[in-house]
Amino acid sequence: MTASPASPPRTPTPDPASVRHAVEHILDDFLATKARAADDAGLPGEIAEVLRGFVLSGGKRLRPVLCTLGWHAADAHTDTPPPPVLKAAASLELFHAFALVHDDLIDRSDTRRGRPTMHRTLAARHRLARGPAEAERLGTDTAILVGDLALAWSDELLHTAGLAPARLDAALAVVDRMRTEVMYGQYLDVAATGTPTDDVDAALRVAHYKTARYTIERPLHLGAALAPAPPPGLTEALTAYALPLGEAFQLRDDLLGVYGTPDLTGKSALEDLREGKATVLIALALRRAAPRGRAVLRSLLADPDLNEDGAATVRAVLDLTGAHRTVEDMIDTRRRDAVHAVESGPFTPPVAATLRDLADQATRRDI
Amino acid sequence: MTASPASPPRTPTPDPASVRHAVEHILDDFLATKARAADDAGLPGEIAEVLRGFVLSGGKRLRPVLCTLGWHAADAHTDTPPPPVLKAAASLELFHAFALVHDDLIDRSDTRRGRPTMHRTLAARHRLARGPAEAERLGTDTAILVGDLALAWSDELLHTAGLAPARLDAALAVVDRMRTEVMYGQYLDVAATGTPTDDVDAALRVAHYKTARYTIERPLHLGAALAPAPPPGLTEALTAYALPLGEAFQLRDDLLGVYGTPDLTGKSALEDLREGKATVLIALALRRAAPRGRAVLRSLLADPDLNEDGAATVRAVLDLTGAHRTVEDMIDTRRRDAVHAVESGPFTPPVAATLRDLADQATRRDI
Repeated sequence: MTASPASPPRTPTPDPASVRHAVEHILDDFLATKARAADDAGLPGEIAEVLRGFVLSGGKRLRPVLCTLGWHAADAHTDTPPPPVLKAAASLELFHAFALVHDDLIDRSDTRRGRPTMHRTLAARHRLARGPAEAERLGTDTAILVGDLALAWSDELLHTAGLAPARLDAALAVVDRMRTEVMYGQYLDVAATGTPTDDVDAALRVAHYKTARYTIERPLHLGAALAPAPPPGLTEALTAYALPLGEAFQLRDDLLGVYGTPDLTGKSALEDLREGKATVLIALALRRAAPRGRAVLRSLLADPDLNEDGAATVRAVLDLTGAHRTVEDMIDTRRRDAVHAVESGPFTPPVAATLRDLADQATRRDI
Repeated sequence: MTASPASPPRTPTPDPASVRHAVEHILDDFLATKARAADDAGLPGEIAEVLRGFVLSGGKRLRPVLCTLGWHAADAHTDTPPPPVLKAAASLELFHAFALVHDDLIDRSDTRRGRPTMHRTLAARHRLARGPAEAERLGTDTAILVGDLALAWSDELLHTAGLAPARLDAALAVVDRMRTEVMYGQYLDVAATGTPTDDVDAALRVAHYKTARYTIERPLHLGAALAPAPPPGLTEALTAYALPLGEAFQLRDDLLGVYGTPDLTGKSALEDLREGKATVLIALALRRAAPRGRAVLRSLLADPDLNEDGAATVRAVLDLTGAHRTVEDMIDTRRRDAVHAVESGPFTPPVAATLRDLADQATRRDI
């Protein structure tokens, strides 16, 4: 990677695959150390082990990749992200593990990434020693704690990343904001789930906080905050890219939640409907359907016993009202807005290319 | 407070009452600002409001007081804790609010400090708009999130306290340890609750992590870490004071859980027995009771329908086996060990006197 004296100056190219690899290694190492420290102290090392299994079982590492991209965008001359930047990026994955564990508890989800969710995994561990009801209760209670630890440890990984004091200070300010935003988004989501309405703006607000800011914007901002001298206007350019892309990403996720297959999404295509998730897709359909269609939707959505026939009926209404089509159009508009922001932002050509790639991947059907 | 040129040099005296006052003011201000910021952004300000109600509804502020005491012990010349130290101390109360909210959820407790617990408060808010079952579910789900926010905000209050980088670094190291310890302690507690055994050591281990380290030792260490040049041996002296005192504090709490009145404890004296809390008191009784007494205990403990008559029977076994008396003796031994550590530690007379007062208060019946 070192340039020979004769080489022309080169523009560093982001390498998402190597970031993913480095992040997995950091997480593996951090959690293995935690498990060993617990074992040595006579404490339950199983918590760190179970979290390690969860964190390393998949995931696209989108947030760490975005974080290092934000850093590349702010530091145009260094070739690869140094260890403190990679550790800060990895801390986002531990935070995300926290968010998923509590989210799955709240949604009573059984599967995540094609595997049992954390509270299910923990309940299964207790089933031999306790009765099924008691194992269930213990699974839920210990999953709250495992999530709490993941949150605390995400901080610890960030604090101990080896950042210079001024960089840590800037990073903490972004992370503080990110955490408050995602929890507010989740709160709005929880309060709306189970009673979907035709309020498209309310559904978009959840997507804004839970996804656009949390998943896309703040990871980019965190990365930018880790560089000593980001170019002027960078934060705003990242926001201009992130917010439409994040909404598009959530809209795609909403479609996949209804039209996807377990192979693609790692969960049943009945789950969102059974929970009664208040998505833009559903809000549009409720707004547009004739009274009869609306009544059909209201009777099927949030029914915990909804079967495949019922789901097919819901999908028919979503198609007939054009809600499905409109959401595809909304995704496309937003993807294009994001790409436009890349073109007008202060990005080097390799960073711009990677941002465009990510925008495509994040809004395609197969992510 | 400024000494006139003629005054002799004085040794600063800790003032717990003014620390409590300052901490309440900081918490009130921090959460009011959060609520306003949410309202301004069209986000649910009710979360910060409900947390503010919870945090300001009582509590002895033991951890912030200990934190400032640790600081006094490490900085013998400054008269009153400066604002960054008070803010760091206050951040412990927000962390404690997080711990209590999730703890009450896990224990399915209805009351805390004589008022409804967080999930009960939140369920009540939803009862008008939703049915009772749905309100219950929402209360639980949003209480998880409110706890999560309290944890994130405790960090934010610490990060933004205005500490010098080296002090913040030292503080974060203590806080990282404290959080891991209390969550492990809580995990051990959760795993043991419902099936109490005669394992006295296991019960003491929970007390060690959940109370001795979390409630007493780490707040003192945090305070010491906030001073630029703590005297040699201070950390160890604080530990020598904290660990026996913390165990004694937990043992007192266990006794109050069985023998206390709601007036004194803010909760029913049936709750710990109904949950089947695996305390030292219960472990001793199970170890010592004759087979018949043990059978009686096993049939009554962890019975969610236990009534006053059943509780009286449990208390009779605790008295007859001498478990009650032994726990009182254990408290006394530990209180004396703590006081002895004060006498042999590097403390100024006013700091030593305050540490002794706290040891008395924390182990007395009426705390």
